This record gives sequence, structure tokens and C-alpha cells, in this order.
Amino acid sequence: MLDYPPAVRQMIAALRQLPTIGPRSAERLALHILKSDPALADSLARSIETGRQAIRPCTRCGFYAQQPLCEVCLDSARNSALLCIVEQASDVLAFEKSGAFQGLYHVLGGCLSPLDEIGPEELQIPRLLQRLREGGITEVILGLNAEVKGETTTLYLAREIHALGLKVSRLATGISVGGSLEFADSATLGHALKDRKVV
Amino acid sequence: MLDYPPAVRQMIAALRQLPTIGPRSAERLALHILKSDPALADSLARSIETGRQAIRPCTRCGFYAQQPLCEVCLDSARNSALLCIVEQASDVLAFEKSGAFQGLYHVLGGCLSPLDEIGPEELQIPRLLQRLREGGITEVILGLNAEVKGETTTLYLAREIHALGLKVSRLATGISVGGSLEFADSATLGHALKDRKVV
Repeated sequence: MLDYPPAVRQMIAALRQLPTIGPRSAERLALHILKSDPALADSLARSIETGRQAIRPCTRCGFYAQQPLCEVCLDSARNSALLCIVEQASDVLAFEKSGAFQGLYHVLGGCLSPLDEIGPEELQIPRLLQRLREGGITEVILGLNAEVKGETTTLYLAREIHALGLKVSRLATGISVGGSLEFADSATLGHALKDRKVV
Repeated sequence: MLDYPPAVRQMIAALRQLPTIGPRSAERLALHILKSDPALADSLARSIETGRQAIRPCTRCGFYAQQPLCEVCLDSARNSALLCIVEQASDVLAFEKSGAFQGLYHVLGGCLSPLDEIGPEELQIPRLLQRLREGGITEVILGLNAEVKGETTTLYLAREIHALGLKVSRLATGISVGGSLEFADSATLGHALKDRKVV
């Protein structure tokens, strides 16, 4: 049976490697690129290539950076005594969008997971402990996901950081702001009840 | 507010130009590309660039081609007396997948649409008529979409091709094979009733 020419098939195969892009979507995207102005293909190819080459983890915190240090670490206005620990580089932006945090970050690159053979050495935990030992940081906030692996990692790190004599806190758990009780799971609701606040 | 470094923002902006990719999807795709092996970004960028440069419309029929002529036009086993007219290059593959057509194709590049100022000259209609006048083709099948613009174009082309003394046919309309009557619209059902077949 006739198929697309090899160059089209290669484009479809490459697009299929992306998450959420199935065979039909990949075909639709490829045909759109072929039909559009060559400038679209150019800018797409160039931005993917340049982006992948130009972006490196910040050498201090692990957030996306185009220079050795990221914009957060370069910003002298930030509170360098306060450190928030997150799993992924993209979590940094979630905190930044909230506008509620003025300190620095440390990206772990994942969570502890003994079953997947991911221990402290596989994550940026040795670097974190070294950074804390270097001094200057007085309080650490654990901003990990509130599920099993995040929980394990939170407990592990809390112990390690306590041992260094630093103040450690974690994010509050409770119902979402603007969220309906109907959609809150029972564990979340349990936490929200336990940590209820006097009004 | 802090945002991604410029190279990441450019990648997100470029991905957003693709159909069905909104801001969140573009961000997710970009972060996936940044997290993955550089080989993924490389193969993606290269295949998009190469594909867009290497693929040209077949000089005879308009299907995707990496050489001057496409694989269909180059295939001497096909019936060159039979021509199927389609709107888009991707429609050729739909016919090929059915396995029911052994002739050649002609891609119009769209449909007549007076409101959008798309007349015969904006489509590959002059080239089609020239191709038919050159001889060799004895029967033409109009394989256009069964909606308003496709219908207008079908009627226009049928008259033009009749004037050249060639046999012209169009696709049958009726219910889908395997389709439920419940989901067939009334116009389709009307056609299917009118063209009913003795069993």
C-alpha cells in the first residue's frame, strides 16, 4: 500500500515521540507543517534545537538556565536564607506564579523510590546537603508532591536537615481554594479537618 | 514574575503555532523535550526541517513527493486512463488505504469558494483541464468532500469535463459501512434511500 514519502514518515515518527501525541495527531501536525509557510517549520526546528542546546540546569539550584546560574539565583533581591525544595524544575514556576515565595530553590530531580532503585545519590540530595552545610540558609521548606514518594522524600529530608540544626517546614495540606468539597478526597478532607483554623 | 528562560519561551511559542496545541500542551511538550535525551530534540528538529525542505507537490498530480513525480505517478502498473480528483494531498492516502482504486490522482488544493475569492485559477483546475486535453485519460472520478463547497466544485468540474467528451462519475453517498442508522444525518439517509440497491 502507498504511504507518505520517507521524509514525511520520519517527521510523523519524530512527532509521535512527544507525550500525548498519537499516530493521528502526529500525522495531522506533520501535514500542517508541510502545508504551512516554510518559516513555521524553520522556527519550530530552530527553537527546538536551540532550546535543547541552550538550556542547562542552573549549577546551583537546578532550575532551567541559559547562563550557568538561573534568574532566581542571580536575583540579589531574593531572600537567600530561605530555601524551597522541589521535585522538578517546572515546580519552581508554580511557586513563582503564586507570588508567595521570595527565597531560593533547590530542584531534586525526582523523589526517593527504593523500588525504582532511586536513592539519595540518584537525586540532587548530596548537593543539597552540601549547599546547606556551606551556611547562609536558615530555613528550609519542603515543597514536594503530597503523594507516597513525595512523602517518603519529605520524611527523609526533614530528618537530614534537622540534623544540620536548620528550621524545616512543609506545605500545608487541605482543600483547594475555590474547590468544591464534593471533589476533595477523604484523605485531603481529613487533613483539612485536623488542621482547621479558628475564624 | 519569573518566567522560563528566553530559549524555552521561544520553543513554547513555536509549538503553539501547531493546530490543537494550546498554551498548556505547548509547555508540556517543551518541558518533555528539555528533559529527554538531546537525540529526541535533534531528530525532531532535523525531521521537521528536512521534511519541509524535501517534500514538494508532485509536478503532475500534486500529491506529496520527494522527487519531481510522486510514487503513484511513477508506478507504471497503475491504470493511467483513470483519474481521481481530490481536494487535498492527504485525501490520496484515504483512497490508497481503501485499496479500491488503481488509477492516478489530481489534487486540486481546495474547493471553489466564491465568498473566499477562490475561483478555478486559485486551484489546480487549469492544470487539470490541460492534463485531460493532453489525452490518455478516459474516465474521471470526482472524489471531493460531500459538503457545500465540494458539491459546487463537483458540479463545475462535471460540466467542464463533460465538455471534453470524457466519462465523469462521482462517489456514491449513503450510510457508512458498520455505521449505525442512529448516527446517520437525514440528508445522508435520504441519499441512501434514493440509491437503494436490490438484494
